[in-house]
Amino acid sequence: MSHNSFGHLFRVTTWGESHGPALGCVVDGCPPGLQLTEADIQVWLDKRRPGQGKFVTQRQEPDAVRILSGVFQDERTAGQVTTGTPISLMIENVDQRSRDYGEIAQAFRAGHADYPYFAKYGVRDYRGGGRSSARETAARVAAGAVARKILEGVTIRGAVVQIGPHAVHPDRMDWSQTDQNPFWAPDAEIVPVWEEHLEKVRKSGSSTGAVVAVEAVGVPAGWGAPIYGKLDSELAAALMTINAAKGVEIGAGFAAAALSGEENADEMRMGPDGPVFLSNKAGGVLGGISTGQPVTARVAFKPTSSILTPRQTLNEAGEEIELRTKGRHDPCVGIRAVPVVEAMTACVLADAFLRHRGQTGGGVFQPGVQGRR
Amino acid sequence: MSHNSFGHLFRVTTWGESHGPALGCVVDGCPPGLQLTEADIQVWLDKRRPGQGKFVTQRQEPDAVRILSGVFQDERTAGQVTTGTPISLMIENVDQRSRDYGEIAQAFRAGHADYPYFAKYGVRDYRGGGRSSARETAARVAAGAVARKILEGVTIRGAVVQIGPHAVHPDRMDWSQTDQNPFWAPDAEIVPVWEEHLEKVRKSGSSTGAVVAVEAVGVPAGWGAPIYGKLDSELAAALMTINAAKGVEIGAGFAAAALSGEENADEMRMGPDGPVFLSNKAGGVLGGISTGQPVTARVAFKPTSSILTPRQTLNEAGEEIELRTKGRHDPCVGIRAVPVVEAMTACVLADAFLRHRGQTGGGVFQPGVQGRR
Amino acid sequence: MSHNSFGHLFRVTTWGESHGPALGCVVDGCPPGLQLTEADIQVWLDKRRPGQGKFVTQRQEPDAVRILSGVFQDERTAGQVTTGTPISLMIENVDQRSRDYGEIAQAFRAGHADYPYFAKYGVRDYRGGGRSSARETAARVAAGAVARKILEGVTIRGAVVQIGPHAVHPDRMDWSQTDQNPFWAPDAEIVPVWEEHLEKVRKSGSSTGAVVAVEAVGVPAGWGAPIYGKLDSELAAALMTINAAKGVEIGAGFAAAALSGEENADEMRMGPDGPVFLSNKAGGVLGGISTGQPVTARVAFKPTSSILTPRQTLNEAGEEIELRTKGRHDPCVGIRAVPVVEAMTACVLADAFLRHRGQTGGGVFQPGVQGRR
Amino acid sequence: MSHNSFGHLFRVTTWGESHGPALGCVVDGCPPGLQLTEADIQVWLDKRRPGQGKFVTQRQEPDAVRILSGVFQDERTAGQVTTGTPISLMIENVDQRSRDYGEIAQAFRAGHADYPYFAKYGVRDYRGGGRSSARETAARVAAGAVARKILEGVTIRGAVVQIGPHAVHPDRMDWSQTDQNPFWAPDAEIVPVWEEHLEKVRKSGSSTGAVVAVEAVGVPAGWGAPIYGKLDSELAAALMTINAAKGVEIGAGFAAAALSGEENADEMRMGPDGPVFLSNKAGGVLGGISTGQPVTARVAFKPTSSILTPRQTLNEAGEEIELRTKGRHDPCVGIRAVPVVEAMTACVLADAFLRHRGQTGGGVFQPGVQGRR
Repeated sequence: MSHNSFGHLFRVTTWGESHGPALGCVVDGCPPGLQLTEADIQVWLDKRRPGQGKFVTQRQEPDAVRILSGVFQDERTAGQVTTGTPISLMIENVDQRSRDYGEIAQAFRAGHADYPYFAKYGVRDYRGGGRSSARETAARVAAGAVARKILEGVTIRGAVVQIGPHAVHPDRMDWSQTDQNPFWAPDAEIVPVWEEHLEKVRKSGSSTGAVVAVEAVGVPAGWGAPIYGKLDSELAAALMTINAAKGVEIGAGFAAAALSGEENADEMRMGPDGPVFLSNKAGGVLGGISTGQPVTARVAFKPTSSILTPRQTLNEAGEEIELRTKGRHDPCVGIRAVPVVEAMTACVLADAFLRHRGQTGGGVFQPGVQGRR
Repeated sequence: MSHNSFGHLFRVTTWGESHGPALGCVVDGCPPGLQLTEADIQVWLDKRRPGQGKFVTQRQEPDAVRILSGVFQDERTAGQVTTGTPISLMIENVDQRSRDYGEIAQAFRAGHADYPYFAKYGVRDYRGGGRSSARETAARVAAGAVARKILEGVTIRGAVVQIGPHAVHPDRMDWSQTDQNPFWAPDAEIVPVWEEHLEKVRKSGSSTGAVVAVEAVGVPAGWGAPIYGKLDSELAAALMTINAAKGVEIGAGFAAAALSGEENADEMRMGPDGPVFLSNKAGGVLGGISTGQPVTARVAFKPTSSILTPRQTLNEAGEEIELRTKGRHDPCVGIRAVPVVEAMTACVLADAFLRHRGQTGGGVFQPGVQGRR
Repeated sequence: MSHNSFGHLFRVTTWGESHGPALGCVVDGCPPGLQLTEADIQVWLDKRRPGQGKFVTQRQEPDAVRILSGVFQDERTAGQVTTGTPISLMIENVDQRSRDYGEIAQAFRAGHADYPYFAKYGVRDYRGGGRSSARETAARVAAGAVARKILEGVTIRGAVVQIGPHAVHPDRMDWSQTDQNPFWAPDAEIVPVWEEHLEKVRKSGSSTGAVVAVEAVGVPAGWGAPIYGKLDSELAAALMTINAAKGVEIGAGFAAAALSGEENADEMRMGPDGPVFLSNKAGGVLGGISTGQPVTARVAFKPTSSILTPRQTLNEAGEEIELRTKGRHDPCVGIRAVPVVEAMTACVLADAFLRHRGQTGGGVFQPGVQGRR
Repeated sequence: MSHNSFGHLFRVTTWGESHGPALGCVVDGCPPGLQLTEADIQVWLDKRRPGQGKFVTQRQEPDAVRILSGVFQDERTAGQVTTGTPISLMIENVDQRSRDYGEIAQAFRAGHADYPYFAKYGVRDYRGGGRSSARETAARVAAGAVARKILEGVTIRGAVVQIGPHAVHPDRMDWSQTDQNPFWAPDAEIVPVWEEHLEKVRKSGSSTGAVVAVEAVGVPAGWGAPIYGKLDSELAAALMTINAAKGVEIGAGFAAAALSGEENADEMRMGPDGPVFLSNKAGGVLGGISTGQPVTARVAFKPTSSILTPRQTLNEAGEEIELRTKGRHDPCVGIRAVPVVEAMTACVLADAFLRHRGQTGGGVFQPGVQGRR
């Protein structure tokens, strides 16, 4: 019910504003005994970190994470492990130039959450969007790093597959490329196209949307749950909470609407290691439960709402004004969303794994069988 | 955590299988004092009911709802009202031809939930898909009827906007048309196109996908909640739990990826009754909170997986087989999904309204002010 | 959040009023593959059933349970089993003499929930207390029967240990006696004392309180969870939801306040089958986690509020009245609470078992290890 | 589901271990616009703080709280207010003498949570009890300070009413005394009795139990909810999560078992300001809903398990050992539990208030009526 938490058995609560002293999260329900150090988390935060290229915001944040609880370094053992108690993670804000935001203190930036926050709460931290800033996603990435520890056998990877009108052709998807360019593009040939497009966008003070794809390979058949705990529903919910997300597809997604039943129903054969599917229109989920195929999803991100072109809007007094949003902003928020999409996917899957183990993990309690771990 | 429940303050738990004796739901958290009779619910169930045309399943179910608890007819008052206690609704299954399903008892129908249910649970009610059948949605429609009672000032309406490759042009959207044809089409001219397409599909024993649009008019600014209780995230989750749903968009959705920031950010002016927006790319939600504009969403439905063309698949013994799905099926599940999409939208909004009232409904407790209802 | 549900992974939602057409519950999260028939549940309902002796209400209810969903009788297998989908249980009300209650339609019976229900909801089903009637506990007993199926290795048993001022001496506790008398008394010698006391109470139209003890033997060390999911906290919450409960103790309970640290801390030795404790002041729970000893609790029940002596009270119009409660009532609700106390204990333990298995049931996901059930 | 969180609309998640770098909590769901500074919280932490007398632990912790998020100091307004976003509170640990605990690293202290934590998790932070330490309650007291802000019209106060065998007589209860002595005793005459008892206990290296009473005055009729969201059940659950709690009573509690129906049912008359009760055996709650009378509860605390007398116990290797617990410990944990009991009561009531407002706070949504705050 808490609206700053997500997950069930693996449950994450985030806190913090863009220009407050710090932000962070509490990860509850992580199993004990997992090796976990700050370095394990930092590597993912570094992937998300701002200030890393000319097409992302120039705000310089080291995003150094501290683990404040939930791990223990026993001198008798080799390394620091989780203890099953809540893992509190904190990231201090360092580069909050509050002076940048004075002008918008009483104005509602078009496309931003300023107006509905004011309508709902009557008060808001207007500095950098406050709680509605994408800085909050740093906490998600930290939580996702813990989730990945639980999912040792699962590979989760994201890629940008469209920027503005320029989409990667499905036949050219090459996951090995995503680390080779600043856009997480899975296609080397599209990189110069996007560079040119973004350069134009950036120079004009405009912005552009994007689509991010994610897949999780190695998820066995059986995770997720009917009817309102469906794996694809929970994934859609998680991905739609990311700032600027406007749509989510699983598998064939909206394209499935134009397919025939023959084209859409993935056929099955028996392979050497068990059932195999001849296609994956389902995106690895049928009836809300994983099939053993890769779980695939796509998320649409709207263009950054902060642009230099003046926009018609209102201020808190209800006066009509024109406003241009200065400051340091990503021209395409979709790019930096990739590690966030991965993190949310990891959290959803870790939760689904724990729940599956709890509810269908081996029948009833009988002494001598399940009495001890 | 219960995976057959959804909602928070307005919480619905559904139960029942396609070929069991009955199905139903428990609606918890409905405010007291609302006029509610079986007729109020039946009208929406009748809208969803099968057996109403040649393009939907021929299973004949009266879907007569009984209210088993949660209402009271006080002889001193005029009519039956909710009491604030859980409302139990039951619909008996009447036309369960179990003999239709003998052949598939041990087979996994391609595109259906048969295989993952078996992988997860090791046992399954294979009759008509059991719990994974779309018959479960009758319970949702019943719950949605209760939710609508709470949302007296909100109009929620759905329409089919695409069947197979044939989409309604946005400029031709006319909500007054949706009740005038068997497809809930908002465009009279597309009706014959869809009829021809569906006739071809039906004759060939195939099926086709669809897209359903929904909008809620009259939602004030301020409902929903950051960060993981976002109105659009909750709506996406709810809509993705509907059978055969593969994608959800809010507002401009995937099209937003190709827009510029100038095109996407809805500008605001002050109207006679308060703030007005000059466009609605946001779909009525910014930062997870309603803006006062219509809340708009679209859901993609895959084609019905039950088709007459034989498909390669497996049985429980792991043997490779070919299977054609006989029985009575909708060639396009998207059509009958319209009242379900409306119902889920109503439930999400009723919950958001109650939560908003609880958490931001007027400050702190002071005696004499909020002591009594 | 739903206030008619309890539990997390094993989650029960109850519904129904005393004089409505039926009552029941939905049990969500039960693992698949458990043998479950109506007879398995009926045996526990019969234990709770009214009309079985002169010291309990004379209302005659067969309390015949129907399973409406969640089980499947596959012709290929031997017997009906749970499928992992929600189990809907229904009990029809048969003997609702509504005419008994006309007089109190607008009055607040002293000690009953009439006044606060009216203050909260503004409307109430006054027939037999409506939702606040102890008839609701039939649904709990049905759910508890399902929970017991999950806890094959655990024995849960309850007893009345005090009626009015007459308490069973701890040294005389003999669990084998509880089935030998109509009071679930664990001491044959106290039976005539209680009979005499209750006869006097009954003849004078009065009522009396009671204390019920429960223990669960066979719970292994490790169930439950810090800090707000403590096994004893969840047990206390569950037991305090039973009608007329006013206090809960775990282990030594209130007596622990008068003990010294030496007396209270249960010492440990190593036995042939593992750690053993030399006493059980803790009631089988330390730090919110089970220790492997019997989990023991006691619940105080107030006297039945329905008595023949007129009491000063108010009616809905705010007028001062005198009211005596006629009708068919238990002079000591504690007696019939025994199977309810057992059922709630079973539900709490089944939930704790599933959660423990989910969150600490064997480390991380690795393919080939936990991929399948 | 998260076991380090409690509450629903007002939801608190705590984290931290006794000897980690810090501890804290995230308070989610606090309404916006409440004046809240660190000083508002510090005053309650100071009440709970250790090192304040010879009968409490000598560990010196300033317990200085920092607000890391959820408040905003707008230069245009007078003072810092809540914004409706999550309030993150942190308290650094300063005086963690880890060297004190080396001896018990592998031993299970009798009466402590050491053994079940090890049985559950296989790993544990043994320093000062780790997560199971009562230091965690500092976070609760901080959260309770926020809850009190919401409950402007409610007075919540606690007192020690029994230490060891020496109980305050009900007729001598005088709330004005509790701030006048180091025991929060509501009776000046019992102070020397307790001093003598505690001095004896302290000198012998022993410990003693206690009973704490709490009451909330000003709660209107109507808060709380049937059936599993009962106000007394939620209060019992919250109080039983406090370290060393072994029993909870509401109103007459266990004494109700010995009462007759005539003695127990609180009669009602009409007073100048509304209904009044002639007694409060119910403890302000009937049917789980508040009656408008003071909500009263009592909590039994066992004696501190850390004592100087050697106790028989085991170590992690399963070897039988004798162990005496050195270190700095409260001889009577019940004394310092008073502000914790108050804080938990405040949190439960704040949650009940918000939920009541959400679910029964004024009917349905109609535009122009509930559209804006």
